[in-house]
Amino acid sequence: MAGNESATWEGTPPEQQTLWTNARIATLDPSKAGLGIIDGGAIQTRGERITWVGEMADVTQDMRANSVPHDLGGRWVTPGLIDCHTHLVYGGNRAREFEMRLEGASYEDIARAGGGIVSSVRATNALTVEGLVETVLPRLDTLIAEGVTTFEIKSGYGLNIEAELRMLRAARALESLRPVRVVTTYLAAHATPVEYKGRNDDYITDVVLPGLERAHAEGLVDAVDGFCEGIAFSVDEMRRVFDKAKALGLPVKLHAEQLSNLGGARMAASYGALSADHLEYLDDDGARAMAETGTVAVLLPGAFYAIRETKKPPVDLLRQAGTPIAVATDSNPGTSPLTSLLLAMNMAATLFYLTVEECLAGTTRVAAQALGLGATTGTIGIGKSADLAIWDIESPAELVYRIGFNPLSAHVFKGKRIDR
Amino acid sequence: MAGNESATWEGTPPEQQTLWTNARIATLDPSKAGLGIIDGGAIQTRGERITWVGEMADVTQDMRANSVPHDLGGRWVTPGLIDCHTHLVYGGNRAREFEMRLEGASYEDIARAGGGIVSSVRATNALTVEGLVETVLPRLDTLIAEGVTTFEIKSGYGLNIEAELRMLRAARALESLRPVRVVTTYLAAHATPVEYKGRNDDYITDVVLPGLERAHAEGLVDAVDGFCEGIAFSVDEMRRVFDKAKALGLPVKLHAEQLSNLGGARMAASYGALSADHLEYLDDDGARAMAETGTVAVLLPGAFYAIRETKKPPVDLLRQAGTPIAVATDSNPGTSPLTSLLLAMNMAATLFYLTVEECLAGTTRVAAQALGLGATTGTIGIGKSADLAIWDIESPAELVYRIGFNPLSAHVFKGKRIDR
Ligand SMILES: [Zn+2]
Ligand SMILES: [Zn+2]
Repeated sequence: MAGNESATWEGTPPEQQTLWTNARIATLDPSKAGLGIIDGGAIQTRGERITWVGEMADVTQDMRANSVPHDLGGRWVTPGLIDCHTHLVYGGNRAREFEMRLEGASYEDIARAGGGIVSSVRATNALTVEGLVETVLPRLDTLIAEGVTTFEIKSGYGLNIEAELRMLRAARALESLRPVRVVTTYLAAHATPVEYKGRNDDYITDVVLPGLERAHAEGLVDAVDGFCEGIAFSVDEMRRVFDKAKALGLPVKLHAEQLSNLGGARMAASYGALSADHLEYLDDDGARAMAETGTVAVLLPGAFYAIRETKKPPVDLLRQAGTPIAVATDSNPGTSPLTSLLLAMNMAATLFYLTVEECLAGTTRVAAQALGLGATTGTIGIGKSADLAIWDIESPAELVYRIGFNPLSAHVFKGKRIDR
Repeated sequence: MAGNESATWEGTPPEQQTLWTNARIATLDPSKAGLGIIDGGAIQTRGERITWVGEMADVTQDMRANSVPHDLGGRWVTPGLIDCHTHLVYGGNRAREFEMRLEGASYEDIARAGGGIVSSVRATNALTVEGLVETVLPRLDTLIAEGVTTFEIKSGYGLNIEAELRMLRAARALESLRPVRVVTTYLAAHATPVEYKGRNDDYITDVVLPGLERAHAEGLVDAVDGFCEGIAFSVDEMRRVFDKAKALGLPVKLHAEQLSNLGGARMAASYGALSADHLEYLDDDGARAMAETGTVAVLLPGAFYAIRETKKPPVDLLRQAGTPIAVATDSNPGTSPLTSLLLAMNMAATLFYLTVEECLAGTTRVAAQALGLGATTGTIGIGKSADLAIWDIESPAELVYRIGFNPLSAHVFKGKRIDR
C-alpha cells in the first residue's frame, strides 16, 4: 500500500473478464475434502465475481478468447483472508501500561497511572472520525499486506453514544479508502464507563440501547456484540441488549467464557448468534448449544498469548460437537495488540493445536460464516466475490508454520489485483 | 528492499558528513541510565561512523555548514538491531512436519516420513552456495525491513565438510548483496549425521575438527558453536571442539541447557565463551560462572514458544548474578521458523517477563557484546558504526508491545540511509 495513503480505492469494471491461470488453488470448497485443492487450476472472474473455477485442462478456447490473461506462475491461491474479530479502530496505545506491568506494577498501580481500558476510551473519545481513520490505517495496511480482504471491526472504546457512532463511521469509511470489505459490530456493551460504575443497567438503558437505535438508523450496524464476563456484563444484562438487536432485526455475537464460565455462549446460541468468541472456559453444554445453531466458535489466540492465559479453549469438545471453528486477531490495544492474521493462525496451531486445515478454514470459509457472509466470500467458487490471496509458498501449511514471515505475492479484491 | 533483489550493496563515501537532526534518540549508552535517551537530539556521521551525538541545542553552526542535513521529524532512533543467534541459511522447510505433528504424528512417524533435522540436512546439502543465498534472501529481507543491521549466521545443516563450508560462504556472500554485517559461526557440532550415528567422537575427529581448520583457513569463521544436549553432544565432546577453537584463536559459544542441565554453560564460560544460548535449565552456578566471564545469556523465546516448552529460563538468577542478557530469533526451520526480531522481543517480554529495557538492550548493545562487536556497533556513540533504526513510534516500549507490526520508518547502515 506504500505511496497510496490518501488514494481512494476503485473497483473492477463490471464487464471485465479475467482468466487467472497456472495456479495451485485451495478453494476451501466445503463439498470437497480438506482444503478443496485443485492442483494446476484456473479461475475466471467477471467484474467483482468468480464465474468459473476448475482444472487448467478444462479451460476452453472460448474462455481464453474472452478474458484478460493472468498467469500466476504455479503459485498457490487461497480465498482472501478474513479477520472476523477485531477492535482495529481506537485512539492511543497501551505501551506504557505494558511496560509498567513488566516492571512489576499491579493493576491498581496502572489504574492510578490512568492506564487500562479507561485510557483507550479517553484517547478514542478525543478523536474525530478522520482522526480515528488516520490511526487505524497503518494497522489495517499491515493486515491487508497479508492478503486480508474482509474485516470485522467493533466499536466499544467510545462508551457514549456519539463516540460509538464515530468509531462505526470510521470503520465504514475504510471501504472507500482501501480494497477491503468491512463488517461493523456495535459493542457499546464492552465495558462500563466510569460515570456508570456499578450501574450496568443504567448504562444499558441510557447509552447501549438508544445508541444502538441511532447507529442502526444511520446504517452503521451489521451485528451486535457484548463482553459477557464477571468484570463486564452479566448474561441477563446481555439479554437486554440482544432483545433490542432482535427487535431491530440485527444478528448478535458475544465475547463469552474468556475468563470464566457464565454460560454466555449458550445464551448467545439461544439467540442464533453468528459467533461466540474467546471460549477458553466453554463447557460441553455450551459447545453443543453452539453446534446446534451453527454459532461459530471464534478462537483468539493473540489474547490468550498476550494475557498469559493458561486455560486453552476446549478444541476437542468443539470438534466432537461439530461446532465450526474460526480464528481471528482480536486486534486491540489492551489484550491483543496483534496485527497479523498469519501469526494468529500460527498461534492457534502452536497454542491450541488447531490443524493447518482448521487454521485456514478458520480464516476463510468459517470466518465468512461467522460474519454472515458465507454466500459472499470465504471460498473460491462460482458466484463468490473474487477475493483471492496469491502466495509464494510450496504448500499451504507454510502459511501456518512460519512465524513473522509474510509470503504474500499479491492479492485480488473484488476481481482487481493489488500488488504488494 | 523491493526491486533490489540482485543489486550489490554500496556503502557511504568515506568523507561524507551527514547531520541527522530532530530525533528522539535511545542511545543505549551504558554510561547513562535506562535506554540512554536524548530527547531532542542529533547525530553526526562521517562516512561509515558516528562522529557526534548530543542535544539539538549543542549542534554548532560549523557542524551544520559541513554536513548534509537530514531532518528526522521528531522520530525515535535506536541503534540498528542485532540478531545475535540465527540459523538463517538452510534449504527446504519443515512445514510438512509441522502439519503432521498437529495431526497427531509421533516423532517416529515424522522420522519415517523423512522429517526432522535430517530433512533440513538433505535439502541444504542439495544446494549450491548460490542456491543457499537465494533461499535465505527473503528471510533476511524480512528482518532487514525491521531495521536489523547485524546478523549472526551459523552453519550446521551441512554436517559434512563441503556443505558446512558452502553454508558459511553463503552467509559471507550476503554482505555484498544487502546492507548488513554478517558474523559467521561454525556449528558442525549441531547434530550427528546419520552416517555417524552413535559415533560422536568419530564425527568430531573426521568432520568437525578438520572442517573447522579448513573453514578457518578460508576466513569463514568468526566463532565456534555446538549443541550441548543429551540428544546432541556431551560437555566432554564439546571440549574437544572448543580446544581446537582455542588453538586457532577463535571465540566460542554454546547452545546449552535448553532441554536439560548438563553444565554446558559453565563449561563454555570456562573457555571465556562469548555467549551461552537458550538456558531454560540453567542453574545458579551456571549463571554466576557466566557473569564472571561476561558470557552473554542469549534467550531465544521463539524456540521456547514453537516447541511449547514450559520451563522458562531463570531470568531472576541472571539478573541477580549480573549476567548480561540478549534476545535473538534463533531463526531456523525446525524449532523456530521465526523471522521477526521485534516479535522475539515481544515474546521475551510476554513469555519470560523481560522488561522493555532488557529487550531493547538485548537486541542492540548486549547482542553486539554477544558477537564480540561491542566496540563496533550496538549503541549510538562516537566511533561506532552509523547503524541506526528510525521508528514511527511514540515511545520505545511500542517496539516490544506490538505483536506483528513493524513501525520502522527507515534505517541507516554504515552511514547510508535505506528506505523501506
Ligand atoms: Zn474482542
Ligand atoms: Zn540455535
